[in-house]
Amino acid sequence: MNGHRSEADAPTSLVVTFPVDRPLITDAGGTVSPLTVAYQTYGTLNADRSNAILVCHALTGDQHVANVHPVTGKPGWWRAMVGPGKPIDTDRFFVICSNVVGGCLGSTGPASINPATSKVFGLDLPVITIRDMVRAQSMLIDHLGIDTLFCVAGGSMGGMQVLQWAALYPDRVFSAMPIATGARHSSQNIAFHEVGRQAIMADPDWRAGRYLDEGTRPEKGLSVARMAAHITYLSDQALHAKFGRKLQDRAAPTFSFDADFQIESYLRYQGRSFVERFDANSYLYMTRAMDYFDLAADYGGSLAQAFKGTRTRFCVASFTSDWLFPTSASRAIVHALNAGSASVSFVEIETDKGHDAFLLDIPDLLATSHGFITAMARARGLA
Amino acid sequence: MNGHRSEADAPTSLVVTFPVDRPLITDAGGTVSPLTVAYQTYGTLNADRSNAILVCHALTGDQHVANVHPVTGKPGWWRAMVGPGKPIDTDRFFVICSNVVGGCLGSTGPASINPATSKVFGLDLPVITIRDMVRAQSMLIDHLGIDTLFCVAGGSMGGMQVLQWAALYPDRVFSAMPIATGARHSSQNIAFHEVGRQAIMADPDWRAGRYLDEGTRPEKGLSVARMAAHITYLSDQALHAKFGRKLQDRAAPTFSFDADFQIESYLRYQGRSFVERFDANSYLYMTRAMDYFDLAADYGGSLAQAFKGTRTRFCVASFTSDWLFPTSASRAIVHALNAGSASVSFVEIETDKGHDAFLLDIPDLLATSHGFITAMARARGLA
Repeated sequence: MNGHRSEADAPTSLVVTFPVDRPLITDAGGTVSPLTVAYQTYGTLNADRSNAILVCHALTGDQHVANVHPVTGKPGWWRAMVGPGKPIDTDRFFVICSNVVGGCLGSTGPASINPATSKVFGLDLPVITIRDMVRAQSMLIDHLGIDTLFCVAGGSMGGMQVLQWAALYPDRVFSAMPIATGARHSSQNIAFHEVGRQAIMADPDWRAGRYLDEGTRPEKGLSVARMAAHITYLSDQALHAKFGRKLQDRAAPTFSFDADFQIESYLRYQGRSFVERFDANSYLYMTRAMDYFDLAADYGGSLAQAFKGTRTRFCVASFTSDWLFPTSASRAIVHALNAGSASVSFVEIETDKGHDAFLLDIPDLLATSHGFITAMARARGLA
Repeated sequence: MNGHRSEADAPTSLVVTFPVDRPLITDAGGTVSPLTVAYQTYGTLNADRSNAILVCHALTGDQHVANVHPVTGKPGWWRAMVGPGKPIDTDRFFVICSNVVGGCLGSTGPASINPATSKVFGLDLPVITIRDMVRAQSMLIDHLGIDTLFCVAGGSMGGMQVLQWAALYPDRVFSAMPIATGARHSSQNIAFHEVGRQAIMADPDWRAGRYLDEGTRPEKGLSVARMAAHITYLSDQALHAKFGRKLQDRAAPTFSFDADFQIESYLRYQGRSFVERFDANSYLYMTRAMDYFDLAADYGGSLAQAFKGTRTRFCVASFTSDWLFPTSASRAIVHALNAGSASVSFVEIETDKGHDAFLLDIPDLLATSHGFITAMARARGLA
């Protein structure tokens, strides 16, 4: 059907399918078996297997961190951060990124074929949590013969996975970079996700989740969901600076419901292009995983307890104009780490780019990351 | 069909229909003829006709300021502000509120019958601007035999009308209270409106705007639009305080797409109840009117010019946690008024209630309003 549809079952990636006796048992009590994980790697694993960096992707991201995307033909989503000579330097490190379980670019997700029925999973896939994503990643890391990751890094939902990795497998994470994230999803963030889900489920082409079997796609609903979410990734200041009240290709308002304003035209484009590369059910699963994320809740309500005794070194970063994961959410992480005397550096970066700043060429972010990774490499004894 | 449907043509309100030789010529170059305005009044007009206060309603408001709503059965939307002994004291003042043109509670709007075709207007109604709303109100004020309004007051879109009244009819406005508003709609605000419109227009039951003729209603789309907008009326702090991550009637998450969280259940309720009382096309018209509002643009780009030489006394109020119309938007109004040496007092009120604070029983808002109106009444020579 669409490019992303074939990527769900025959991805342009490395793929590992685990034997049926190694299923993923999910937090929801479900079983994913066999579990397939699609992933990309960059650089070379050293003889000690000590130079591996795991990159965790965000809600609508995927494993194509630093290569041309097989569906969109666009460069990788973290090209500012990952590549030769970049802060996550593929000349020095072995970089891994896997599509999360529940995703739609080759790892087992709602758009995958369910081997039990030979039909698309749809909503028959168990609901996935951030911890389930991390468990699946740990199986991949085992498969690659890596014991300890030199670093786990990611922004937004990727940052949630970084925190979950550090809590779940403290001895396997030498250093961690959670960026523009939080240890739990806020009420307002759940609210925005719920709007997106309702938009998708309101689309009659969603067909109670069975649209792929029935040959439809809830493109309008998914597009509206993306438009609403996209606003939260930017900032009022950035929108004002970039678009203001400028009109799109016209000298005067048309007094109609056309896209008179550039911001409208831009948002509609964001919606249209998103549906080309993403699966609507995957969007439901990803947003739900974020909603359920509350790391402290797994440790008796104490975030400090989640990181108790950790030897992982942390670098936490936030952005001044990020209102989805504001600096206060990062500070809560830092306070919890401080409470356990963990090694942590924290930087709040001044920018008007909003939440999406973690994806962009923000010099302060890149310098911070470069500095942290260089220092960690020295501490780890990497040349 | 629904309660609101009959209110569109046979409102539970006072109604004036102007003769066809007194049409409303809109900014878009359209003609609304005959123009019908539905309105409520409270209190008694004094012999001098000098004690009239015009209240202007917000996007989803209506003329039922201080009486039981004919569709919902709930008390009026500004009962905290308007009534006997309230800041806008109906024992002292003659209070008027009309449904805006383009609305759906009895004034000519897209849900009204088009006399030219005997069918529902739908999108055949010209796009309406804030200035069109104010022109229609001025026709009502003429009809009531009132020359000068003692005060014009309103919040949000109502505040836009207050500013437009002061700019368009400076000699007819003795005092003005624009609350939680701005002199233009921001890029981010246009973006949120566009999401709502796209949600409505994506609903197949919208039928290109002809749903009332065709016996359908885009309830799902309108509900999603309301949910998205509703988040912007609150604040992150208020949502955290009220809902946090609390679950709805259950002890543990269900790991599903049900409304596990209270915030989800609350939002869904907001969507459902809104569609009972509001017309989807009216929602398109109201949001569009706000998008197009840019008072300075009508005065060569200078907001100060809009108020040049004004003798109207202003009281401008904003709320610390309002991110839809932040204090900076109110300050821009105050600066423009100061530039022309206008009489203006300004208060930023500390509250976590967000934009919707203007509707609520916020003591600082009520005290400020009471103080301003009392002082203005003295200045006007009202006993």
